[in-house]
Amino acid sequence: MIGSPSLRGAADHGAVRRANLSAVLQTLRHGPRTRASLARETALTKGTISSLVSELSARGLVRGHEPARLGGVGRPGQHVELVGERVAALGIELNVDYLVAAVVSLTGEQRAVRRQAYDVRASVEETVEQAAALLAETAAEARSGTDGLLAGVGVAAPGLVDLATGVVRFAPNLGWRDVPLRELVHQRLRDLASCWQVIGAAAPDLAVYVDNEANLATLAEYATIPSHDDRDLVYVTGGVGVGAGLVVDGRVVRGSAGFAGEVGHLAIASDGERCGCGRRGCWETLCGLSALLRLAADPPDLIHDHDRDLDERLAILVDRARAGDRRTRQAFAAVGRWLGHGASMLVNLVNPRVLVFGGYFARVADQLRPHVEAELAERVVAPDLGGCRVEFSRLGLAAAATGAAYAALQPVVDDPALVPYTDRDVSAAAGSAGTSGGQVRTPAEGRSDERLHTHP
Amino acid sequence: MIGSPSLRGAADHGAVRRANLSAVLQTLRHGPRTRASLARETALTKGTISSLVSELSARGLVRGHEPARLGGVGRPGQHVELVGERVAALGIELNVDYLVAAVVSLTGEQRAVRRQAYDVRASVEETVEQAAALLAETAAEARSGTDGLLAGVGVAAPGLVDLATGVVRFAPNLGWRDVPLRELVHQRLRDLASCWQVIGAAAPDLAVYVDNEANLATLAEYATIPSHDDRDLVYVTGGVGVGAGLVVDGRVVRGSAGFAGEVGHLAIASDGERCGCGRRGCWETLCGLSALLRLAADPPDLIHDHDRDLDERLAILVDRARAGDRRTRQAFAAVGRWLGHGASMLVNLVNPRVLVFGGYFARVADQLRPHVEAELAERVVAPDLGGCRVEFSRLGLAAAATGAAYAALQPVVDDPALVPYTDRDVSAAAGSAGTSGGQVRTPAEGRSDERLHTHP
Repeated sequence: MIGSPSLRGAADHGAVRRANLSAVLQTLRHGPRTRASLARETALTKGTISSLVSELSARGLVRGHEPARLGGVGRPGQHVELVGERVAALGIELNVDYLVAAVVSLTGEQRAVRRQAYDVRASVEETVEQAAALLAETAAEARSGTDGLLAGVGVAAPGLVDLATGVVRFAPNLGWRDVPLRELVHQRLRDLASCWQVIGAAAPDLAVYVDNEANLATLAEYATIPSHDDRDLVYVTGGVGVGAGLVVDGRVVRGSAGFAGEVGHLAIASDGERCGCGRRGCWETLCGLSALLRLAADPPDLIHDHDRDLDERLAILVDRARAGDRRTRQAFAAVGRWLGHGASMLVNLVNPRVLVFGGYFARVADQLRPHVEAELAERVVAPDLGGCRVEFSRLGLAAAATGAAYAALQPVVDDPALVPYTDRDVSAAAGSAGTSGGQVRTPAEGRSDERLHTHP
Repeated sequence: MIGSPSLRGAADHGAVRRANLSAVLQTLRHGPRTRASLARETALTKGTISSLVSELSARGLVRGHEPARLGGVGRPGQHVELVGERVAALGIELNVDYLVAAVVSLTGEQRAVRRQAYDVRASVEETVEQAAALLAETAAEARSGTDGLLAGVGVAAPGLVDLATGVVRFAPNLGWRDVPLRELVHQRLRDLASCWQVIGAAAPDLAVYVDNEANLATLAEYATIPSHDDRDLVYVTGGVGVGAGLVVDGRVVRGSAGFAGEVGHLAIASDGERCGCGRRGCWETLCGLSALLRLAADPPDLIHDHDRDLDERLAILVDRARAGDRRTRQAFAAVGRWLGHGASMLVNLVNPRVLVFGGYFARVADQLRPHVEAELAERVVAPDLGGCRVEFSRLGLAAAATGAAYAALQPVVDDPALVPYTDRDVSAAAGSAGTSGGQVRTPAEGRSDERLHTHP
């Protein structure tokens, strides 16, 4: 009862239809469902579900799904599933070393991912230019085989972002302060609309959403969890720095001023290497990338060669460990122990269902896992880690870009009526002239006599 | 957009009226408002607000409020305020040393608070017996001057609680395992209904709610925050153990299995006194009550005399510190530093708006504050503590009991129509026979022609 959703604004009746369409869509994101199952999970009547599924079908967002039949006997349940070709969004991450762009469909499928090197000394204008070019290439690559409806663009920035304005307040690793990134990306991307049809409340203008990269990566990791019921997740990502994101009861925790997840400087040890922040014992000095490389070999060992791709250098370390190299194995053990030590604090504090390690940790998962798990078992107070599973990310370096695209899809998830009817259904249902020009038709909401076609 | 409330179940139209009544009630919990202000804060029309206020008034939950007039010129705004005499709930905390019971009104006022010593070696049956007697006394004391509507009873237990069943799964300090506390309290309290009129969905049965004491204390602390906009809070409470509660976006974080807030055993130091858990360096060994007493004086100093009330012993320490006693001052400094050290981790992780110290920390606030604040300033990464205020609780030892009563009031806050009409209004509005026998009349919801009296 205390856990019931708090009401920040009250509902009106028009909002009910939108909320119900959204509830069905969100449920189907977890996989195909029968109408009966949808009714049960959303607490709506079967009649209402039928009407909602008809509307979603007419908008091209869902279709009938033939489930596997056991022995071919009996009438299969009327399954409904999301359509992945209908709507997509773009996401891009601006990182210290690289840019990654992704096109993600409403079903969560990565339709295209591109990564390129980035020189952190580039100006803001050059950065936006490079980002726009990469987005355009990635968008063109993903265009085939889709209806080409674009919900928007999400941008992941390594810093503190003002969500309302899309201004990057402070990104120390890029040397940015008060950069109006949303506005800059928005101006530069106008011509994307020539290739995709933009939908959404601002259409034909392209909606651009800017957020912190750790929050967006967390969102993407959360979206990959198969179960509807796992609502609490901790994500820990490693590069030179160590960051974290929290999902509590299905929502990403941002903190009152957007500073949540500042874990890199948790004072885990009482001494150690001096951190960039001036202190000693910070978590990222103990298990960040620099710690692993320093512990594993001295320069001029080739793992310290910054001209080589990081993936390649990590692969060398994994090979050495597998071959039994003592120093490399000790380095992984030490880093894994410190990683587990810090992570145990997060688990004790928020009791997540899933703890996910991303970034470089995921690349060396097999080497770290036993040490991380041993430390967690020792330090988490609740029995059996409080029911927490330990996982390593499979999204790799595209996690934040994927999360950015997810964020850009959210307006459609919240209000599926933003998606126009497919031509066939529009003409059949209302004799309308179609959806040319990106115009979105919304029928009278919740009317029981709306004559929409039920998808076969 | 990512922060929008997730839909776990979809809305129906009947729920809209209840949600709107609840939204108005919740807004008024933060203080009197004009109808215009209510409309703005709830995003409802003024007409809807008028109808909702009329219904709440007819149920005796709100009344007109004459605001202070500046110079006596001009028409005062039509303020509305909550009525504190109408509905109350009982709360009780079972602690290792004492029991505390409280009667709390819908306005948050503590109408009565009683505390009594408790011997932790008592059996479950004896404990429930004592708790029931204390609740009955406290309820009788608070009965005068109220309408005597009782929303339920909340019970705060020092352990892991299954919220759905009210079973205390594990309370190591009480030596309890799988105690069906809700059922036991429910059986024992049946006769309370002779003194109060029970309302709610289960009426005339008394609703009993059992939860963890740290979560409930956190809820009570959160409720005392004046601003509607401060949605993130960290509560740290000290006794022999150290515990924490988190509020994120207005909701208490429980964790996926109810283990959230396990901070007492965070490994803050690399060594130190051995903890009850077998490890060294746990936060509670550094700033729990035993650490303060041990650092401040050696036995047989009277602060170690367990026959004296804890309040008295702490007052002795404060007096010594004020008189300049070096060892006492050093003890407060060390405890304050460690307290700030651990708290900085919580602030870095969740970026709260408010950090509240309760339990024994609040009793010695002046001694700890400078050291806590210095340590926070040094260790929190975000500038200006990320906008976080540091406060010490004013709820004292009744925090958990007060939170338990708050939790028991929640069903009424979520659905104000559970409260019967006042006799006067019922007869005037609908010619009904009244509300005798605890029957709750619910009018057709959301009808614009419901003829309820507007409170003068």
